[in-house]
Order: sequence, then structure tokens, then C-alpha cells
Amino acid sequence: MDGSPFSAPQSKISPTETERCIESLLAVFQRYAGREGDNLKLSKKEFLAFMNTELASFTKNQKDPAVVDRMMKRLDINSDGQLDFQEFLNLIGGIAVACHDALLVQPPRP
Amino acid sequence: MDGSPFSAPQSKISPTETERCIESLLAVFQRYAGREGDNLKLSKKEFLAFMNTELASFTKNQKDPAVVDRMMKRLDINSDGQLDFQEFLNLIGGIAVACHDALLVQPPRP
Repeated sequence: MDGSPFSAPQSKISPTETERCIESLLAVFQRYAGREGDNLKLSKKEFLAFMNTELASFTKNQKDPAVVDRMMKRLDINSDGQLDFQEFLNLIGGIAVACHDALLVQPPRP
Repeated sequence: MDGSPFSAPQSKISPTETERCIESLLAVFQRYAGREGDNLKLSKKEFLAFMNTELASFTKNQKDPAVVDRMMKRLDINSDGQLDFQEFLNLIGGIAVACHDALLVQPPRP
């Protein structure tokens, strides 16, 4: 992911936190989706690699090894056995909302 | 946003790129939503401040000043005149998909 979609080559303005975050989402998805088969989709193997690396803190804590399989099935809205970028973002969004609710909606008990 | 939802205080493991990105989404949303009124929602004023700062490269290029208003109306799914975190994520997701399609689905012409 060389070309950053936000900072034009000649501009001195560095991307904002939000822009860096969007770039990261693109870069991370591409890093795993580009490993095999269709470069625009995560195969099951690529999704597993993503979960075991990028979200290891979540994945390692799962007692049921089938949880990642079930997650993929639920995320795979068009049931093509792969996750496109929108389906991948639904995962990120779901985790972000869960963190937001855990951190902010129920403030930690004193 | 002191407590990172991912790196447990005692752990030496730094958050992955995906985890940092989710933390950024939480932090940026909270930075603007916390300015006035309901801390869990972006008011119109807070959304405008977010668009003019975090996504200035997009907002500055809009010829029609009403575009940000229309965006807010479209994002405000429950029409309460504010954007909650999920509605905010829909904006981020929409921009990310637009960038993904522009950068990857149609590779730049040589």
C-alpha cells in the first residue's frame, strides 16, 4: 500500500488520525487478502491468519476453537465462503462498538 | 481515552495495527462527541468540527457547503439529530470502501 489515499505526494500535510486509521484498515485487509486466491477477499485461511495475528488477544481467549469459524459464517453475508472488504469492516465495526459499549456506555464501577 | 481496551496494563504486548485502529476510532469519536451535550453522540456542531478537522481533505474539496448537512441526515439512521458511534462507524466504513474501490478495484491506469 504505497500510495496513501489521503496525503497527496507533493503535500506537506500529514494524514489525520482518522485518515491514518482508514489507511490502516485498507493496508491490513490487503496484507491478508493478498496472500492467496482473490486479492480483494479474505479466504477462510487468510481470515484465520488475520484473527490469530491481528486480533490474537481476542482469539486466544476463546475456549471454543469453532468460534472463529462461526464468526466467518456470520460475517460472510453473501455466503461465497470469503470476506470482502465491506464484510471485513463489519467485523471491525462490531468489535469497536463492543469496546465502546464496554468502556463508555457502562463506566467502570469505582 | 487512557485505558487501552487491548493492552492489559501489566502486559508487555503492544496493540496490533488493527487494535490501534479500533482504539483510534474510539478516541476520535470520544474527542468530538465529548465536547457538548450527550458524550455518546455527535451533535451537528461536533460532526461539523470532526469533518472540518479530521476529514478536512475531503470537506475542503466540496463545492456545495450543504454536502456535510446531507451526509449527517443520511448517516442519522434513527433521525434523532445526532450520530451515535455505530452511525459514525458507517461513515468511516463508507469512506474506507470508497478508497478501497478507488485504489484496488480499479487499478490506476498506466
